[in-house]
Amino acid sequence: MIIINQSVSVLSCTVDPEILLERAGRTCYKSEDKITDSSASKFVEMICVRNHESVLEHAVATLLFTVDRGVTHELVRHRIASFSQESTRYVNYYKKGEMRVVQPIGMNAEQTKAWSDAMQYAESAYNYMVAAGCKPEVARDVLPTCLAADIVVTANFREWKHIFKLRTSPAAHPKIRAIMSAAQLLLNTYSPTVFKLPDPQAAK
Amino acid sequence: MIIINQSVSVLSCTVDPEILLERAGRTCYKSEDKITDSSASKFVEMICVRNHESVLEHAVATLLFTVDRGVTHELVRHRIASFSQESTRYVNYYKKGEMRVVQPIGMNAEQTKAWSDAMQYAESAYNYMVAAGCKPEVARDVLPTCLAADIVVTANFREWKHIFKLRTSPAAHPKIRAIMSAAQLLLNTYSPTVFKLPDPQAAK
Amino acid sequence: MIIINQSVSVLSCTVDPEILLERAGRTCYKSEDKITDSSASKFVEMICVRNHESVLEHAVATLLFTVDRGVTHELVRHRIASFSQESTRYVNYYKKGEMRVVQPIGMNAEQTKAWSDAMQYAESAYNYMVAAGCKPEVARDVLPTCLAADIVVTANFREWKHIFKLRTSPAAHPKIRAIMSAAQLLLNTYSPTVFKLPDPQAAK
Amino acid sequence: MIIINQSVSVLSCTVDPEILLERAGRTCYKSEDKITDSSASKFVEMICVRNHESVLEHAVATLLFTVDRGVTHELVRHRIASFSQESTRYVNYYKKGEMRVVQPIGMNAEQTKAWSDAMQYAESAYNYMVAAGCKPEVARDVLPTCLAADIVVTANFREWKHIFKLRTSPAAHPKIRAIMSAAQLLLNTYSPTVFKLPDPQAAK
Repeated sequence: MIIINQSVSVLSCTVDPEILLERAGRTCYKSEDKITDSSASKFVEMICVRNHESVLEHAVATLLFTVDRGVTHELVRHRIASFSQESTRYVNYYKKGEMRVVQPIGMNAEQTKAWSDAMQYAESAYNYMVAAGCKPEVARDVLPTCLAADIVVTANFREWKHIFKLRTSPAAHPKIRAIMSAAQLLLNTYSPTVFKLPDPQAAK
Repeated sequence: MIIINQSVSVLSCTVDPEILLERAGRTCYKSEDKITDSSASKFVEMICVRNHESVLEHAVATLLFTVDRGVTHELVRHRIASFSQESTRYVNYYKKGEMRVVQPIGMNAEQTKAWSDAMQYAESAYNYMVAAGCKPEVARDVLPTCLAADIVVTANFREWKHIFKLRTSPAAHPKIRAIMSAAQLLLNTYSPTVFKLPDPQAAK
Repeated sequence: MIIINQSVSVLSCTVDPEILLERAGRTCYKSEDKITDSSASKFVEMICVRNHESVLEHAVATLLFTVDRGVTHELVRHRIASFSQESTRYVNYYKKGEMRVVQPIGMNAEQTKAWSDAMQYAESAYNYMVAAGCKPEVARDVLPTCLAADIVVTANFREWKHIFKLRTSPAAHPKIRAIMSAAQLLLNTYSPTVFKLPDPQAAK
Repeated sequence: MIIINQSVSVLSCTVDPEILLERAGRTCYKSEDKITDSSASKFVEMICVRNHESVLEHAVATLLFTVDRGVTHELVRHRIASFSQESTRYVNYYKKGEMRVVQPIGMNAEQTKAWSDAMQYAESAYNYMVAAGCKPEVARDVLPTCLAADIVVTANFREWKHIFKLRTSPAAHPKIRAIMSAAQLLLNTYSPTVFKLPDPQAAK
């Protein structure tokens, strides 16, 4: 058993996304003649302010997350996105020789000890069953919610903005909140206008 | 811990669905004058044969499933559907005094014994952590994949047809295959034309 | 040529929609035991206030609109909905002997005269071409934007709420605004809690 | 009035799309170790053959079309796509000094003459009304179906494949069939594996 931390990275993103967004947005008004070398960011800012958000759908980013299956179950509820997820049907953790679980958030030492024991027990039970001829897709019954899974998620900028709004809120699960805050930081470097960071002053 | 079987029931369905489908489909051709008391089934049959399947979207059914969280995770990947699912964040299984798990499919007696012990261990760990002050949404880490969950699923007939095609195939997971075959039987009584049953002869 | 007014009617709606919405919503919390004969409306109100809007997706309504093709082009941009629309490819208006157009909104008498002449011209051109052997799908080139079309639209309550918000706003096109205000009135009788009417006092 | 031909160009496409698709697809099986410098095309081919098409959703292309509004009305029915379309509400063709219409497909000389006269009449009527103070969004009533519109369309590779299948078929409208065949040729250069060209021999 390996205990890992959640992680996220960018696999792909639209090249020059704000330039594309301006090009698409100006099609509606046939005002392409107003495009200059430096007009994109201002135009995209205006789009965001006016809630003409459909324009933001033309830029897209693909992220790779390693999170637990409690988080992936929440993640795949976002329907305007595409997912390729590590499968408990096709991956044989016994044969692979390692079961990855995600470090808990919000447990004290005593609870963490109980958690760790439960992880060991689940891994042993799974390995025992698969060694005894059980298919991985059947033995998965005993795998815990905090089993780690890789998941590739592609969504457009409008949807990523929406995901970040919902999933970085104080009402979100602590794990998804932490990883989505990290994801937002990453996408901010690709489009600072669309993915504005929360004002650190505002939090005080 | 309570071991239950998967189950499914119909909560709601479009009234007279084939009559509605004919009404909608004939709008495209402005042939509403051809509607008679007995024309619906034949028209819907023709729609299915010609793959003019968008018409089937106007009828809708809502089903309540009790399945495990391995199955719900597959189920919510169908994006043309709506879901309300029992939440491991908001339900406190310790306080509720019972953890429901779904009977495995495809284990022998020895494997089932290992499975049962693993369930007991997971339940004890969860209860211990929640009793020690851990939030249910944090303690859920140790809950097993075969934890039962109620989930209400609404989808239109075109999507149910697509779900049944994928999920009753031999390539599907045994649990989702069993429950979706049962769901298909239920919807067949609401619209025998759309939800044709597999020919029992063909299977021989 | 026949000049008609826009119209809308309800073809189908979920039976007892608020009862179904409560049943679905309470699944998330496993609080089905709190359902009483009169609890639905209050529960649905709470769902709306808390923006737990995904629950509203389980109830569905199918409406039949007769509107012009400028309006249908806006309408089909709502992607969380299903459409069956009168087709300019399959309907032969020459053979049918009538071209229906929708009464303009916002023209004075002089403009209406020019509009009416343009309609006559377009109809003559279409009829001439089809009579001369042109396929309807080719001759449609000359059909005007205000050509009437029947369109059957099925959407869930969450999406209808969203459509009404966007399309009854002062920023909406006058034709879609008028017909969507009428549609909202109709659905209000099916679920007064979900489809609240605008406060007439507020408009003053 | 300007008579133009339909056109299409690529505004943006995922960089190295087949490499991304392999990376995403292998996540499901945790077989990333099998990636080599030349493995992508073969892997993507396998994905297509096995109909594991959800993987194809991670690559995305944005195309700019100039087509008529009959074609845009068909195009926006594809719900798994994003659109920014030239607006008849916000563009003032009178002020712009030109109304663009798309060259018909499938008319003889006599019919084309009738078509051309109808275009002149429609343009005059529109200009007259707008000059007389009518808003463009009201005067649009008289604009013909073959009015040209720019439309930016973003869709993932799975959806483009689906669009090409439906819209290049002999059952499709001649205009959309012609422009989608051109679009398919363009995307073939970005991903020859996903966007296979029809075998010219097969057509014989």
